[in-house]
Amino acid sequence: MSTPTPVFLDCDTGIDDSVALAYLLRSPAINLVGVGTVSGNTDSAQAARNTLDLLAVAGRDDIPVAVGAHDFTSHPYDGGAPHVHGDNGVGDVVLPTSSQPIDERTAVQLLIDLSHTYAGTLHLLTIGPLTNIAAALAADPTLPERIAAVTTMGGTALAAGNISPVAEANIGNDPEAASVVFSADWDVTIVPLDVTMEHTLSDADRHALLESPSPLARTVGEILDHYLDFYLPQYGERVSSLHDPLAAVIAAGAATITRAPLVPVQVDTTNGPGRGQTVVDLRGQRLGDRNHEGVRTRFVRDVKSGTAAHLVEVITS
Amino acid sequence: MSTPTPVFLDCDTGIDDSVALAYLLRSPAINLVGVGTVSGNTDSAQAARNTLDLLAVAGRDDIPVAVGAHDFTSHPYDGGAPHVHGDNGVGDVVLPTSSQPIDERTAVQLLIDLSHTYAGTLHLLTIGPLTNIAAALAADPTLPERIAAVTTMGGTALAAGNISPVAEANIGNDPEAASVVFSADWDVTIVPLDVTMEHTLSDADRHALLESPSPLARTVGEILDHYLDFYLPQYGERVSSLHDPLAAVIAAGAATITRAPLVPVQVDTTNGPGRGQTVVDLRGQRLGDRNHEGVRTRFVRDVKSGTAAHLVEVITS
Repeated sequence: MSTPTPVFLDCDTGIDDSVALAYLLRSPAINLVGVGTVSGNTDSAQAARNTLDLLAVAGRDDIPVAVGAHDFTSHPYDGGAPHVHGDNGVGDVVLPTSSQPIDERTAVQLLIDLSHTYAGTLHLLTIGPLTNIAAALAADPTLPERIAAVTTMGGTALAAGNISPVAEANIGNDPEAASVVFSADWDVTIVPLDVTMEHTLSDADRHALLESPSPLARTVGEILDHYLDFYLPQYGERVSSLHDPLAAVIAAGAATITRAPLVPVQVDTTNGPGRGQTVVDLRGQRLGDRNHEGVRTRFVRDVKSGTAAHLVEVITS
Repeated sequence: MSTPTPVFLDCDTGIDDSVALAYLLRSPAINLVGVGTVSGNTDSAQAARNTLDLLAVAGRDDIPVAVGAHDFTSHPYDGGAPHVHGDNGVGDVVLPTSSQPIDERTAVQLLIDLSHTYAGTLHLLTIGPLTNIAAALAADPTLPERIAAVTTMGGTALAAGNISPVAEANIGNDPEAASVVFSADWDVTIVPLDVTMEHTLSDADRHALLESPSPLARTVGEILDHYLDFYLPQYGERVSSLHDPLAAVIAAGAATITRAPLVPVQVDTTNGPGRGQTVVDLRGQRLGDRNHEGVRTRFVRDVKSGTAAHLVEVITS
């Protein structure tokens, strides 16, 4: 068996972040070495609280969790998405409070420190706005030299946005940061709404989590309840989009990606109607994927189904 | 049989404009009462030349053709798309020169005059940049009161752009004009790349035109040759996208539109990467069309197939 990949997770925990976190903790392909939090679904302090409490449920008090940016690069945090994620970010489920202290470092410093500890092998997985990562690049421009790869849940090309007609929340909340991150000198795999909206977890999957002997799986099952309510009007049934979990499965190398061209991705940082959009050059792709030379951003367009079953299997293991 | 609809055509003739024009001339549902030209595929003067010459091939010297704007609202015309439409706009086919003079009025004045002649019934069909129409609205803000409906080929939502990753040529060439036209107080049906790229005319269809006893049909068949060459690498076969012709068929009421929600459409007039994009709010449409209250822009998302056969049938009639 190959060595698990050391992963730094930057997140805004968050219901689907919770599912992703549980998966990363249980996946044999992943060694989660640190977590930074950022505002997005909830604020960065609450996201750290939720993350620590979930780690405690999983019996893991060895993973440092550091609080990152409360406000975005160019504007203040605006209160998140309580209608989607509940008032506390985890579907209003009250988690037992972990006794593990929050790491004293900032999320930026923790990421930079771990990039030295795991130089050349550290995988960066981001499932929130990219505020911390842009700040880390500003603080240490050599960071990309020590990062093996970046996987980012965010953006959309040929699917509708979720915070504007064309903008997805993680990118749209901090377009300036996303623009910096996508322009840096590293390999980025973008996991956009184009695919995450097509991979769903059903209420039956949720019940499989609830019936597990694993406290972590049961907790995730409870948290998901709120999310399935939110998505009911969009899908016509109680299912959950697998935004962050799909990115985690891709980071673990456990997804069969069938379309993911290397294409230029620009982030709209104007104040026009397209603000926060990932402008992705998908021209000339009618006959199949066409990679642009010299481009290091891979835009995931299609992933084989079976994600929910895989998530349930790993989280309940 | 019902009275044919009086139509004013604003165009940048252009190969697919030529097909649309031929269709409008032969459709029993249409009474083409005037044509204005604008720069786009070619410049507005050449577009008028091509239009007059095609009208002569059809034996029609009774339809006024007026030259419109050479330059766009905020920037000069940049030379069009000779790689798509040939150096003369009509696939480098040399048309016999019509003896009909160009109308002495501007395209704006011709449109305003005809809106009085056909007050309340005139249908405005635009298949080029919206420069003239925005100028007409500025010249006479009461214009919408006399226009029955507007059909516009342009824009894209969930399909890639054709002059930028997200912008279609007609809108992208003059976003300021498009923004004015889509904000005016009239019913607009937008026929975007989302549908026009899915409706194609084959080389066999082209040969059916070439073999027709109708000089107009044969001329259109000749002109199309260049266009099929252009589209070969995109489709993997010699076919023509039916951008402008599909809009003409829709204006004639001869298409079966299966999806066309009334949705807010904003045009990106910034100088960011999304400039010229039609930002269309298609959120919440997963379960079917959802019309937004008070909105008068209908965005065509799906049209039943059979467009090429219908075009050939009408043009050869």
